[in-house]
Amino acid sequence: MREGGLARRLTAEALGTGILAATVIGSGIMAEQLAGGNQGLALLANSLATGAMLVVIILIFGPVSGAHFNPAVSLAFVLRGELQIRDAGFYAMAQIGGGLVGAIIAHVMFNMDLVQTATHVRTGPGQWVGEAVATGMLVLAIFACLRHAPQQVPVAVGLVITSNYWATASTSFANPAITIARTITDTFTAIRPEDAVVFIIVQIAAAAITAACFSWLFAEKAPIRKPAE
Amino acid sequence: MREGGLARRLTAEALGTGILAATVIGSGIMAEQLAGGNQGLALLANSLATGAMLVVIILIFGPVSGAHFNPAVSLAFVLRGELQIRDAGFYAMAQIGGGLVGAIIAHVMFNMDLVQTATHVRTGPGQWVGEAVATGMLVLAIFACLRHAPQQVPVAVGLVITSNYWATASTSFANPAITIARTITDTFTAIRPEDAVVFIIVQIAAAAITAACFSWLFAEKAPIRKPAE
Amino acid sequence: MREGGLARRLTAEALGTGILAATVIGSGIMAEQLAGGNQGLALLANSLATGAMLVVIILIFGPVSGAHFNPAVSLAFVLRGELQIRDAGFYAMAQIGGGLVGAIIAHVMFNMDLVQTATHVRTGPGQWVGEAVATGMLVLAIFACLRHAPQQVPVAVGLVITSNYWATASTSFANPAITIARTITDTFTAIRPEDAVVFIIVQIAAAAITAACFSWLFAEKAPIRKPAE
Amino acid sequence: MREGGLARRLTAEALGTGILAATVIGSGIMAEQLAGGNQGLALLANSLATGAMLVVIILIFGPVSGAHFNPAVSLAFVLRGELQIRDAGFYAMAQIGGGLVGAIIAHVMFNMDLVQTATHVRTGPGQWVGEAVATGMLVLAIFACLRHAPQQVPVAVGLVITSNYWATASTSFANPAITIARTITDTFTAIRPEDAVVFIIVQIAAAAITAACFSWLFAEKAPIRKPAE
Repeated sequence: MREGGLARRLTAEALGTGILAATVIGSGIMAEQLAGGNQGLALLANSLATGAMLVVIILIFGPVSGAHFNPAVSLAFVLRGELQIRDAGFYAMAQIGGGLVGAIIAHVMFNMDLVQTATHVRTGPGQWVGEAVATGMLVLAIFACLRHAPQQVPVAVGLVITSNYWATASTSFANPAITIARTITDTFTAIRPEDAVVFIIVQIAAAAITAACFSWLFAEKAPIRKPAE
Repeated sequence: MREGGLARRLTAEALGTGILAATVIGSGIMAEQLAGGNQGLALLANSLATGAMLVVIILIFGPVSGAHFNPAVSLAFVLRGELQIRDAGFYAMAQIGGGLVGAIIAHVMFNMDLVQTATHVRTGPGQWVGEAVATGMLVLAIFACLRHAPQQVPVAVGLVITSNYWATASTSFANPAITIARTITDTFTAIRPEDAVVFIIVQIAAAAITAACFSWLFAEKAPIRKPAE
Repeated sequence: MREGGLARRLTAEALGTGILAATVIGSGIMAEQLAGGNQGLALLANSLATGAMLVVIILIFGPVSGAHFNPAVSLAFVLRGELQIRDAGFYAMAQIGGGLVGAIIAHVMFNMDLVQTATHVRTGPGQWVGEAVATGMLVLAIFACLRHAPQQVPVAVGLVITSNYWATASTSFANPAITIARTITDTFTAIRPEDAVVFIIVQIAAAAITAACFSWLFAEKAPIRKPAE
Repeated sequence: MREGGLARRLTAEALGTGILAATVIGSGIMAEQLAGGNQGLALLANSLATGAMLVVIILIFGPVSGAHFNPAVSLAFVLRGELQIRDAGFYAMAQIGGGLVGAIIAHVMFNMDLVQTATHVRTGPGQWVGEAVATGMLVLAIFACLRHAPQQVPVAVGLVITSNYWATASTSFANPAITIARTITDTFTAIRPEDAVVFIIVQIAAAAITAACFSWLFAEKAPIRKPAE
């Protein structure tokens, strides 16, 4: 299903994650500027813009790279035997690099300092549980849809993130690459670097646990797809 | 279509209902905290988050358990001869248990008392009619789509609930398990236990009546699907 | 594709139009009550609830009656030779009756006088052009999708109405049965009876003209479907 | 796939672009009038109405003309060898003419001067980068979906524009014909003519560059579709 060599796949991962980071951060800036101080309205615009763009970039890049845009998701594919660990490492680098460039492009668009120091505090057990729930549900949605209704993956991912912006206390980062990108902005969607570290640990753990439990819940005898070459 | 044994199916029902309860209650908390006192904006976020998550969890768990997440819906399947009554009892227990755990997880995420006493009054004939309409339409949407366009069930359920959050005076609980879960929170989506009892009676009656009328409207000679083993 | 006799089809049209009227009026009441005086927020909730419900009721009732819920749409089917004129008359009666009952049910749910006198002024050339545009686009969307992508009719109808709530100065009534239903409410979505008369004339004219022009634009040699029995 | 001769195709392009312009401008007027001074709420309504209508008009006119509604998109089809340059010129004229008529119809609906002088300043490197990103993503979404999931083009285009209304500093014009139409209004979505010139240059350049890079990313050996007759 996936075309082309590793260079094309990594380009797709970097481009897609960059677009996602620019969308998350850029729409957060725009929303806060226009919302007249109403944080709820700003989060509503931010959550709809993010979910909508996820649908689009998974449609665009899915056939090229699988459209992970997320090191925790790539890890889950490795654990399920559908991605080689070496490729997952490259994927993670492309995702993180793309996310950082996306954050910078958002700052270019809104005439801000290109690299900023995030001061937004996001910490505490409640938010960590939120990240665990958000990442676990994201991984569950991806693998369940891939198994039973693969053409629904884009919509499922967009909707689960839009919903969890509201349902989880952490606003559903659920993605180490995007979490890192959000440490170099000091706007609506920012997170302090020291808080980001814990978020990322929780995201990776939740993705791994969900991938491990998935086989039982769906009564799999063996993985249904093979790693791409 | 449905895989695995009863244990897997009950796990799916408990997990899905738990996610739904956490989404309803959690997004209500977040929305009220951020909406700056505007109840309309809070309900808008709450209704969109709920509908979006319904699409996702039906996509995820549908192939495992049928994705009822709702004792009234399971009852309707029994009445149509598509679910054994014994299994419906287990389903209801899993749904209620999952919903309660979901409510507690929402409280964990937002650093609140784990079990609260709901004080939100929701009563009166207008709201009871609302629950009847909302539950009847939910059951109608499920069975009509299962019959003619089964791949549209997730979207139809998500949209009917999002819409009825606004169109019905009760904000469309339409689900005894979620109604029970909402009695142990004292936040935006709460309902007093004494009010919940009436809501649940209305929901069950409306589901049963709708299931009974369905065969005539759709000119069925016999149920089109058999109970799962 | 359509099942059952005329009684079932008329029941479906009445039920669907009743649900639609209750949704339009009910969500308008709820939205205005909660929006804290912000008409834009109220219209946003009203437009999303209406569009979402349209998708649902077309999915539910489409296979039974074609899911017109709208005398202007039934007229367009007659003009294209796909509905018998006698049946269209019965359809219109079912739609108008269902819509009125739906309005009353909305009032029951919100504890209001069952039948009210609308005082909301909606008149002037700008709004009449709006109704012409809105109805023409609705008819165009229905027939184009029926021809090329029939499974997309529900989504197309929901989205065109949600969008035209904002894009047309009249907020896109586009439906004589719903327009009549909205004359017996004095809430957010009301229209004075004297204004409704002009709206309905414009709607019927726009539907007829669009149906007539459709064949040329889509280069039809002959209607592609036959009237249902 | 595309029916009829050039006259039908140009009519479809003009009609579709006119509807799009009327929707963008009309929903902007309505949103600003009702939003009580909250620009964020106005943009939310404007972005949802625009994205929703894009889905509808691509569903309607796609089988007739390809549903470009956008000279930059038509240019990208030329560069990919899928549209004859002569036809692209006619397409652009139909699109620009249709867009201007759509703007005038919006003014008719809202009882405003038919042709206005835009005074809304939209300029600066940040917004130009925004237009480049928005147009590039639009072209990428169209060609990627045409290649792998053509039935998803309508949804992808609607979602990418709704999202980029928020994510790009320019609110994602991404369309020379609509940009021109927005110079003859002095309402929420207006742009000064002198600013429009730069926007259009950026849009055309971004579309051309994206079309050129597309073949590499998707490892195409040759264009997969032929120009329509």
